[in-house]
Amino acid sequence: MSIPPVPRVLAAHLPEAAPGTTVTLRGHVHRRRVLSAVTFLVVRDRSGTAQVVLRADEAGRTDVPPEETPIRVTGVATTNPNAPGGVEVTAPRIDLLADPARTPPFELWRPSLGAGLAAILDHAPVSLRHRSRRAAWEIAAASLRGFRDTLDRQGFREVHTPKLVGSATESGADVFPVDYFGRPAFLAQSPQFFKQQLVGVFERVYEVGPVFRAEPHDTVRHLAEYRSLDAELGFIDDHRDVLRCLRDVLDGMVTEIRRSADEAVAVLSPDLPVVPDEIPTIHFRDALRLVGAPADEPDLAPEHERALGAWARSEHGSDFLGVEGYPMAKRPFYTHPQPDDPRWSNSFDLLFRGIELVTGGQRRHRYDDCVSALRAKGERPEDHAEYLSAFAHGMPPHGGFAIGLERWVARVIGAANVREVTLYPRDLHRLTP
Amino acid sequence: MSIPPVPRVLAAHLPEAAPGTTVTLRGHVHRRRVLSAVTFLVVRDRSGTAQVVLRADEAGRTDVPPEETPIRVTGVATTNPNAPGGVEVTAPRIDLLADPARTPPFELWRPSLGAGLAAILDHAPVSLRHRSRRAAWEIAAASLRGFRDTLDRQGFREVHTPKLVGSATESGADVFPVDYFGRPAFLAQSPQFFKQQLVGVFERVYEVGPVFRAEPHDTVRHLAEYRSLDAELGFIDDHRDVLRCLRDVLDGMVTEIRRSADEAVAVLSPDLPVVPDEIPTIHFRDALRLVGAPADEPDLAPEHERALGAWARSEHGSDFLGVEGYPMAKRPFYTHPQPDDPRWSNSFDLLFRGIELVTGGQRRHRYDDCVSALRAKGERPEDHAEYLSAFAHGMPPHGGFAIGLERWVARVIGAANVREVTLYPRDLHRLTP
Repeated sequence: MSIPPVPRVLAAHLPEAAPGTTVTLRGHVHRRRVLSAVTFLVVRDRSGTAQVVLRADEAGRTDVPPEETPIRVTGVATTNPNAPGGVEVTAPRIDLLADPARTPPFELWRPSLGAGLAAILDHAPVSLRHRSRRAAWEIAAASLRGFRDTLDRQGFREVHTPKLVGSATESGADVFPVDYFGRPAFLAQSPQFFKQQLVGVFERVYEVGPVFRAEPHDTVRHLAEYRSLDAELGFIDDHRDVLRCLRDVLDGMVTEIRRSADEAVAVLSPDLPVVPDEIPTIHFRDALRLVGAPADEPDLAPEHERALGAWARSEHGSDFLGVEGYPMAKRPFYTHPQPDDPRWSNSFDLLFRGIELVTGGQRRHRYDDCVSALRAKGERPEDHAEYLSAFAHGMPPHGGFAIGLERWVARVIGAANVREVTLYPRDLHRLTP
Repeated sequence: MSIPPVPRVLAAHLPEAAPGTTVTLRGHVHRRRVLSAVTFLVVRDRSGTAQVVLRADEAGRTDVPPEETPIRVTGVATTNPNAPGGVEVTAPRIDLLADPARTPPFELWRPSLGAGLAAILDHAPVSLRHRSRRAAWEIAAASLRGFRDTLDRQGFREVHTPKLVGSATESGADVFPVDYFGRPAFLAQSPQFFKQQLVGVFERVYEVGPVFRAEPHDTVRHLAEYRSLDAELGFIDDHRDVLRCLRDVLDGMVTEIRRSADEAVAVLSPDLPVVPDEIPTIHFRDALRLVGAPADEPDLAPEHERALGAWARSEHGSDFLGVEGYPMAKRPFYTHPQPDDPRWSNSFDLLFRGIELVTGGQRRHRYDDCVSALRAKGERPEDHAEYLSAFAHGMPPHGGFAIGLERWVARVIGAANVREVTLYPRDLHRLTP
């Protein structure tokens, strides 16, 4: 099999080929349609699809491969107003780049996969080829780039912290135990303690990485392994600085989706939010009052969050609402109290269209405060000696936040289940493929 | 404590302040020097350091905080040719942003940490503040950005694949077992199988993430958890396309180090390589001949690699040498054989200054080949049903490579031990801090 010397053209660039020139495509057979006078092949590559046409006599001489077979097609770029992009490939020579593909479990060329979620996930290596699943991940990849680019511009340093840890990060519950050379270890539930220490080193840090939660919850929101987009910044005044940083990050993520995932946006037609210049904020205490909840409620119920989302939209024209001041009793030990009233905290939840999207806030930065707070939660400071050493040796006022990638993407595209936007989800029941 | 209304200036921007204006710095006390007539404070923030000067009478009235204490300094920008950058802060008001810091276990302001590696790693939360350790990680962070930016420009898609897997990735050895909701699971040794499947989805993919090796090796090169920079691309002709992609990636990484880690380069003075437009390549068989090794050697010994490195430098003026065609017997089952002689493989090692840096190559892409190769290694195809399903349904010729971040950085800056360039290393003996 000799290799034609014509360089490859991507499907998306076929319309730029001069009519009558010889071109070579490489891609999968996306769709094969055999009609009486003509056979259409749609070829899919990383850039999109292109149409290849064989006359009946050509198709008769050629082995027209089945869908999903990887092929090389060399033929003539030909103007056809009915072809996608206005140019198709005619008089093709088709070389198979592997054996003819077996029939996939889904008709990947159809607009929708038309199968249940379990079947889709069981066959992820193939179902991910469907444009709806690719598009969902393209939104995720663009979000990651927007997250990093925004923080890079603001002087943040990317860090990578251990996923194997000697003790549970925040509490003893819901951790996966690991046999570490015969010793007990755990998978990190979050990079919280490390990213705080690294504020003392780089002042502003971010990390994109897996976090692991052995949560026995079988819901549309829970994964045993997910991607956490963590940021932490030092020398802040309070949690409002953290919320401003989060605003910039979300704006950067949406902007990058619009800029570089335009095809995915065309496929999924998500209702992309506009991130306001300043995210409206309400105190937890006032939020309770607004929704008519008792003043001693320790948390917001889902219906309260929905009511607050509606209020943010009508009152501020905003999809986003920051709720600050959550009761200290419900927050982890490292949460900084509100200076003028320590029943409340300098932390926030960010609601997006009436559902909690991100939690963040200011952290305690004084050594003695950290030690007292650990003790008050029944923990022994000795068990956190290394974390505390950063504070003993001087930590600035700081805070941060963590965005769950899968939940973010699911919200943005309106997916009902985080598993729809995860390449290979892991949960209570699923460890494969 | 009232907050002065003067906005913060970063240390690196102090030289741009108009002399006589009031400025506010925020940072850690990097160094405190009390002389008879004057006290010098060097303040360190994420951008660099700035000098603050107190006259004896000012120092007498002020609580001059110990090193590492986070402070806010408001004073007058004053020209002084002897100050770093030509501008210092005089007549300062100093506010402590936390309690006075305890004396660190190292004098962080000294040019070198002056401690053994074990002590440095035991006190990572503090030792990482030293400029040499920060600089090493800044080289790493710039390398990550260079890796991603290069591949983004070439149409690659970032992916994230599971670190919790149901079976060992490449072989049963050296995996960490995890208790997964009462079932056995493992930590992924590499994203190999997933990134191959995803070539069928996105054609070109990359991933930056942790990989886990339970290798009982206590050496300067081995970590139990490290960062793998993985790329995989489809519709290649052979492994040479993979090597060309790797060349572009390494060039992008070095370029980004020069561009954005210039301060780290100034601190560490690494001998940054020039990546040639085309990496010179030699066949394994010829490499053995060149170094005078027996023709049936299955691998290159370290002294052979060093000799080849010297040869690449003298013959090609290159720090890099690709050795292609490694014997199939020593490569994993997914390695593609050399089409004209299946004793050899379409894979390569990339030597950097005479030491193996990256392994890569073309993979098998035909379903039947994959099944036969698995069987030949004594594995049951049924145990890899999901991986194989991608091949049954059409996989293009493809290949890829993986760069170990820590080894790359150690080589680039000439560190003797990968632990020196890892924020919180994990190895046979170390699971903390």
